[in-house]
Amino acid sequence: MATVCLSGTLEDKLAAAAGAGFDGVEVFEPDLVASPWAPAELAARCADLGLGIDLYQPFRDLDSTDPATAARNLRRARAKFDVMADLGVDTVLVCSAVAPDAVRDDDELTAQLSAAADLAAERGMRIAYEALAWGSHVSTWDHSWRVVQAADHPALGLCLDSFHVLSRGGDPAGFAAVPGEKLFFLQLADAPRLDMDVLQWSRHHRLFPGQGAFDLPAFLGHVLAAGYPGPLSLEVFNDVFRQSDPARTAVDAMRSLLALEAALPVDPLVLPPAPALHGYAFTELAVDGTSGPALADVLGRLGFAHTGQHRSKPVQLWEQGAARVLLNAGAPRTAEGGAAVAAVAVESADPTAAAARAEALLAPVLPRSRGAAEAELSAVAAPDGTQVFLARTGPDGWPADFLPTGGTAAGAGLTGTDHVALTQPYDSYDEAGLFYRSVLGLADGGGSEVAAPFGLVRSRGVTTPDRAVRLVLSASVLRRGDWSPAVPDPQHVAFATDDLVATARALRAAGAPLLAVPANYHDDLAARVDLDPQLLADLREHGLLHDTDAGGSFLHLYTEVLAGRVFFEVVQRLSGYDGYGAVNTPVRMAAHRRARQATGAGTPSTRSR
Amino acid sequence: MATVCLSGTLEDKLAAAAGAGFDGVEVFEPDLVASPWAPAELAARCADLGLGIDLYQPFRDLDSTDPATAARNLRRARAKFDVMADLGVDTVLVCSAVAPDAVRDDDELTAQLSAAADLAAERGMRIAYEALAWGSHVSTWDHSWRVVQAADHPALGLCLDSFHVLSRGGDPAGFAAVPGEKLFFLQLADAPRLDMDVLQWSRHHRLFPGQGAFDLPAFLGHVLAAGYPGPLSLEVFNDVFRQSDPARTAVDAMRSLLALEAALPVDPLVLPPAPALHGYAFTELAVDGTSGPALADVLGRLGFAHTGQHRSKPVQLWEQGAARVLLNAGAPRTAEGGAAVAAVAVESADPTAAAARAEALLAPVLPRSRGAAEAELSAVAAPDGTQVFLARTGPDGWPADFLPTGGTAAGAGLTGTDHVALTQPYDSYDEAGLFYRSVLGLADGGGSEVAAPFGLVRSRGVTTPDRAVRLVLSASVLRRGDWSPAVPDPQHVAFATDDLVATARALRAAGAPLLAVPANYHDDLAARVDLDPQLLADLREHGLLHDTDAGGSFLHLYTEVLAGRVFFEVVQRLSGYDGYGAVNTPVRMAAHRRARQATGAGTPSTRSR
Repeated sequence: MATVCLSGTLEDKLAAAAGAGFDGVEVFEPDLVASPWAPAELAARCADLGLGIDLYQPFRDLDSTDPATAARNLRRARAKFDVMADLGVDTVLVCSAVAPDAVRDDDELTAQLSAAADLAAERGMRIAYEALAWGSHVSTWDHSWRVVQAADHPALGLCLDSFHVLSRGGDPAGFAAVPGEKLFFLQLADAPRLDMDVLQWSRHHRLFPGQGAFDLPAFLGHVLAAGYPGPLSLEVFNDVFRQSDPARTAVDAMRSLLALEAALPVDPLVLPPAPALHGYAFTELAVDGTSGPALADVLGRLGFAHTGQHRSKPVQLWEQGAARVLLNAGAPRTAEGGAAVAAVAVESADPTAAAARAEALLAPVLPRSRGAAEAELSAVAAPDGTQVFLARTGPDGWPADFLPTGGTAAGAGLTGTDHVALTQPYDSYDEAGLFYRSVLGLADGGGSEVAAPFGLVRSRGVTTPDRAVRLVLSASVLRRGDWSPAVPDPQHVAFATDDLVATARALRAAGAPLLAVPANYHDDLAARVDLDPQLLADLREHGLLHDTDAGGSFLHLYTEVLAGRVFFEVVQRLSGYDGYGAVNTPVRMAAHRRARQATGAGTPSTRSR
Repeated sequence: MATVCLSGTLEDKLAAAAGAGFDGVEVFEPDLVASPWAPAELAARCADLGLGIDLYQPFRDLDSTDPATAARNLRRARAKFDVMADLGVDTVLVCSAVAPDAVRDDDELTAQLSAAADLAAERGMRIAYEALAWGSHVSTWDHSWRVVQAADHPALGLCLDSFHVLSRGGDPAGFAAVPGEKLFFLQLADAPRLDMDVLQWSRHHRLFPGQGAFDLPAFLGHVLAAGYPGPLSLEVFNDVFRQSDPARTAVDAMRSLLALEAALPVDPLVLPPAPALHGYAFTELAVDGTSGPALADVLGRLGFAHTGQHRSKPVQLWEQGAARVLLNAGAPRTAEGGAAVAAVAVESADPTAAAARAEALLAPVLPRSRGAAEAELSAVAAPDGTQVFLARTGPDGWPADFLPTGGTAAGAGLTGTDHVALTQPYDSYDEAGLFYRSVLGLADGGGSEVAAPFGLVRSRGVTTPDRAVRLVLSASVLRRGDWSPAVPDPQHVAFATDDLVATARALRAAGAPLLAVPANYHDDLAARVDLDPQLLADLREHGLLHDTDAGGSFLHLYTEVLAGRVFFEVVQRLSGYDGYGAVNTPVRMAAHRRARQATGAGTPSTRSR
């Protein structure tokens, strides 16, 4: 773990890295410079925490065409070797120079690096030379390798950094040409694909492996195949991680590293495999004395029946087809009051094995109080606090916890749960994506960014391969319109139907609180899309929304925000449509705001500007 | 004002634009689509608010090489002309196409645009054609002009957008070749210089005129010289504005527009001129029963004397040389409790004229309750709530409000106030910069971004030309380490000395609470910079920090955070150093955190993750 990944002082960072189970750190010079610990004291503190110091990073711009500058840089190197001796670290990172006076001649560069390597060797130390993607002369890993090869100095080797290699389109297959003992160090970082200056991309937008677009398992495979014997170090410059709780970031980082190793052709860790998931068992809503009856009323109008009562807890089971909702009046109160998604339960044939994988990936496994007749149910906590249950719906599964009420309902055509959408704090958006992909083995379904009325909203789906489980994670970039008290961070459960028009008709007849869609929306839709006139008339009549993707089309409707931050959606997928109607999000948000302003709902924001 | 600049629903946006004094809007289609108001009703609401609708923006990708698509686009155009007729707007924006099927042949493009212009003309409407900087075929304003010229259609003219022109390095001097009546519309936006994909730059980082790097007065001058007769419209896509209070953003926008007009060679508004400022009169700290005596004690140890007591308010005047601090026990309590900078007072020969300018630029002018013998003092509120006083220090000025106490002190060599540094909420960082530049006529001294221990911190100085008044505004990008309760958003007052080593010696002798600087800092400094050995020894002995810039060097020291969020700095500028030692900010922040952890100070954060 490079200390630069984490927020706080050096003391904070070391405690976080050790707490997450890292066994070594790269110390960034600015962290040491700001620390009251002398280098030898730092080494002792690290040892107490079980942390080795694997690398020191003091150097920028070692080589120079100006002889006086080059000489001064060597003097600086000597001073830093003194620091390293006190730290007990033998490897120093030297990045390719970026200054205007960087050496542009390979022979001269080789000579200057060799001179520095001589100094290092005198101290029993060695230099790991790294090509920065924006280096003035050396900017690709193979160029850095040519220089190291030419120097042929035992104290000069390579540092490979996945960002610098992959951001420039470098081919890691070429590592095979490098003897393993010349690979002195390895830094791993992922990143989203961004079309911007590579330095800014690197300094602000790196991510932990598995959170971005790079193929880190392949990269690491090539490095290991070349015989690299050293540590895997994460070096991630990220604006969010720089200001987030370092203990939490370090756990996210370690989970990323464990998942990366598990994705290698030969998993050195032998994690329990990702569980096969067979769909949603249920979604559990935490309710209180006011929101419980209100949501029960709405579920009734949506065609659900109250079919079961938990044997030992104040929990109601509501069902329609394979769509199931629990109303839990005994869950801890949410901060917002009202109602919130407390848990999502996915069906797994082997909940115990799934929980073992989750635990191995540092997911907090939750204790479950279980009555005599109650079924096995594993639960882990997701980054946003939502409980994820792994459960079986069969006769010996979780339904056995409920005593049948005998309740029935005509239904409104809902067949199951299509997806659950959970708003994430922005700081844990990438963490949440990695959590669901690694712990539950879900696949990234791609992301989108929408200019919503109260600010940009980023979202991405994570799904099982067969789409039986779909989860949508979203987050407000910056903040979410906290000037408006009527705008909570929403959560919703989307149910599936095979005939949304018929379902909508039934819901309206039952007085369900459906969200009104402006006529302007359908006027625009008619101008944009060639729709069957009858379908367009039905969409207008029932206030349905529409989207298309490459494969198919999508019809959907929303309820108003019902209590706290919860609302429902009903969707119909046609011809394999695979999205979530994100294009209609602004229309939904504006309508939600109007509906809540009209009812005076919405708790005032407590955040000051 | 384009509705896309503002956060909220269309209703929110119109109220905000009208409230800030705009007389017209550009309606973005997504705002209308999400609105429950039919177009005619929207027109009526706008009229009620005193807003014209100057432009409608429905079109992307009008032209197409696919005849079927091109025909469908014309049908879509007809539908939108119906909407425009109901809106009562006669100008529609058509951007150059960005789709893969965009027409690549100028003759064909001219023909398709002329066909659309025919349709518009039938309705008494007209098309303003704009080159998007990332258009597939047309991406420069002069190319768009060639196409419009070739079409020679009375219903087809140009829309000029400063971002699209200036981001591509276009020369606005060329507008002189365009007859004024072919300039159908003008959109103004500023932006910082960013090395990134121009589309992302445009969609996320635009700013109001005067907040970025473009020369908008020159641009606008060329447009007006060409005879453009229409409105000046702001079209600013900005991630922060999208989620900030629209009423506030609209005022910021109007201030920007007023300042832009005032910067034209002939100011059509005739704003009162920016005041000549002659330095700091004083800085006023709001204190309570605990922090008041604590700060008084520290000021005493810093060599200040309590020289005056306000005639009618519980305010103490402390002085040393020209450095003056007021401790005000009667100011409104700050949210943090403890202490905070309540006001900065700058010297102006004509406070009344300065206040008139501030008022003309929509700065809230604050009422002052004044006793019989009290001096004239104008006050305006800055975006972060800090009061800015414009005051005279002469015998007839503000000091007359204070009864001398006879207090004296030996002093510690402080000669005056060098700068005041105020942390801004991130959402109002650009607003604050524009406020000080336009209202007080300060100049932008350049910005910096520092990777501080608790997240990225952006800062910029604003100064008078002679540097008599220096103000430093800073903001945490995203949030500022709210996981750490010991880290408040700080504010500080920096005093000047001509001999920092002597001052430091005096302060230590007096027991001033100086911030400890780690030995590692000076070890690194010795390795980095060739310093005189005696100076280095002095820096080590007294815990002084050091920086250099192109011109000179800088010595400075800090106190601990004293109460609430306030601390002090003492600086010595050598050979015209013009910065603020930003490179040492991380060291200072880490030391502040340690000092506050050691004393258990710092209020717990109330924000949850």
